[in-house]
Amino acid sequence: MSVKMNLNCPIPQLDFDRITLGHGSGGVLTHKLLDSGVFDLLSNEILDKKHDGAFLNLEGEVAMSTDSFVVNPVFFPGGDIGELAINGTVNDLAMCGAIPKYLSLAFIIEEGLLMQDFWNILVSIKAAAERAGVKVVTGDTKVVERGKGDQIFINTTGIGTIHPKAKISDTHIKTGDKIIVSNSIANHGIAIMSVREGLEFETEILSDTCALNEPVLQLIENFADGIHVMRDPTRGGLGTVLAEIAKDQKIGIDIAQTTIPVEEQVNGACELLGLDPLYVANEGVFITIVDGSIANEVCEQLKVFDTCAKASIIGEIVDDHKGQVIIQSAIGGRRVVNMLPGEQLPRIC
Amino acid sequence: MSVKMNLNCPIPQLDFDRITLGHGSGGVLTHKLLDSGVFDLLSNEILDKKHDGAFLNLEGEVAMSTDSFVVNPVFFPGGDIGELAINGTVNDLAMCGAIPKYLSLAFIIEEGLLMQDFWNILVSIKAAAERAGVKVVTGDTKVVERGKGDQIFINTTGIGTIHPKAKISDTHIKTGDKIIVSNSIANHGIAIMSVREGLEFETEILSDTCALNEPVLQLIENFADGIHVMRDPTRGGLGTVLAEIAKDQKIGIDIAQTTIPVEEQVNGACELLGLDPLYVANEGVFITIVDGSIANEVCEQLKVFDTCAKASIIGEIVDDHKGQVIIQSAIGGRRVVNMLPGEQLPRIC
Repeated sequence: MSVKMNLNCPIPQLDFDRITLGHGSGGVLTHKLLDSGVFDLLSNEILDKKHDGAFLNLEGEVAMSTDSFVVNPVFFPGGDIGELAINGTVNDLAMCGAIPKYLSLAFIIEEGLLMQDFWNILVSIKAAAERAGVKVVTGDTKVVERGKGDQIFINTTGIGTIHPKAKISDTHIKTGDKIIVSNSIANHGIAIMSVREGLEFETEILSDTCALNEPVLQLIENFADGIHVMRDPTRGGLGTVLAEIAKDQKIGIDIAQTTIPVEEQVNGACELLGLDPLYVANEGVFITIVDGSIANEVCEQLKVFDTCAKASIIGEIVDDHKGQVIIQSAIGGRRVVNMLPGEQLPRIC
Repeated sequence: MSVKMNLNCPIPQLDFDRITLGHGSGGVLTHKLLDSGVFDLLSNEILDKKHDGAFLNLEGEVAMSTDSFVVNPVFFPGGDIGELAINGTVNDLAMCGAIPKYLSLAFIIEEGLLMQDFWNILVSIKAAAERAGVKVVTGDTKVVERGKGDQIFINTTGIGTIHPKAKISDTHIKTGDKIIVSNSIANHGIAIMSVREGLEFETEILSDTCALNEPVLQLIENFADGIHVMRDPTRGGLGTVLAEIAKDQKIGIDIAQTTIPVEEQVNGACELLGLDPLYVANEGVFITIVDGSIANEVCEQLKVFDTCAKASIIGEIVDDHKGQVIIQSAIGGRRVVNMLPGEQLPRIC
């Protein structure tokens, strides 16, 4: 929970403590809900117009990305659904080489949601949007009957302008390129799973949810067309993303297990739960495939950011086993990394 | 159901007939679902890139709008949730004076949804997008457990470019302006309600769901700054929208009940259900507030469109009872029209 922010943004005085179907009617109750502090909290000169649509000024090429968030539980160690919804779409835009600018925000609320929970989520949204430097410019609120939803689902759709130096495309990948992962993997999935399974660890495992636009855009600024691909391994994890790229581009990928950063505790939890960290979701990690000649420098520049402290070169593009990812295990064996076949952890984001 | 289109777009051969949690995993099953025909059906040069984000070219000022659709039932007389999701966002953009261009499309599916139903919804989305001249450029699919959703929820977020002649703003309203409603009201709400309540009528009452960008943009093209306001009275209906405008702009609005087009059968159903058509949702109607001198001409131009056949001047802005809407009833009495207080018909869109 966003306890820190709540101290600065106490919930307004209201004559209701739960959200009802009427709050989704489009009538007086909807206005009451939005005017209770929602608009004030997220205020900016575009949203303040309160029109059904937002008027934006954009220059240059534009990227658009959408994501719905259905994570369960909505509050988890290291974050909540509100923060996740902002960071997730910000990161999808950053992966396109775009500077995230504007977000829409749409709620589907199950009737009975505590206003205190909704408020905590909103405060978290506000803080995450400020950190990422994006504006929430338009929104929508629907309410469904009890048992027809699950507390709250959030859709964010984002617009960003493409960084003029970005030359990102899977087709730019070539043999000798290096693969870099920006931080330790599998934290988000394990943070969620540990709550669901009631696991306790010596120190709590926290979700890695964070906005990655700052480190990503600095790489583009400094290395331009040396950066060939960026991708955030969320659902499906690192393994699925790499397997996708290998298959789609018909290239061979070699990775080495010992170079992939995984926190000791996360590794332990994965063993306990029978999960392979390669397939566990991340919400604050990206991979980038870069020209081999700049890989070390990219890694060093990333490590300057707290959110990329464990950046590591984990493998390379090879002129062999096209369409496949091969991992060299810690004890020396080699095996194929396939896409996640089904659902490992449902409702992780 | 979109029976007509299904003949042209038969569901592909699949080895599954229901959507499972795995289809939302981001792994192999998600790819299988999307590659089963979803991408082919909605194909365009931007979506085909299959990146997490879409790359767009936009010129001029831009509008953005978002809406989640949770209508129950998902198939209803005259439409379905897919068509509604396209038309709803297209219309929100049109109300901003924008030419709708690009949509994102995000599904939250309850596990167990029949693939045939999903396919019918997709086909309907395709047809609606084609009719409105918009492209679906990016998307997202999440699956939640049975009992944590309700078949399917859809979010669409749209981007459009502002028509260069559009000068739409509530602040342009002035005394003497006329209020025009583009077609008969209350059809959508009553179509939904009649299914839920098992009502039968001599001829079936159909939802009015349709895209309004064509008539709206023609008005802007022809009358430019003579068009002061456009608004689509969806949730909350005509009464709520007018009451909102009167309150926000501190202006007086007079309307006459006899001039408001309502189909006889819809009127009858409203009486039967104890509903006031003024508060029943529409999905293919807009109101416009225009300079008094052009009102008749606006009305005539609208009537050329099938979707605006019943366009009618229903009232005017007066220099009296500021902040209030007063309706003159058929038998001559006058009463205040307030906003819909709570939820009249939940999950109407």
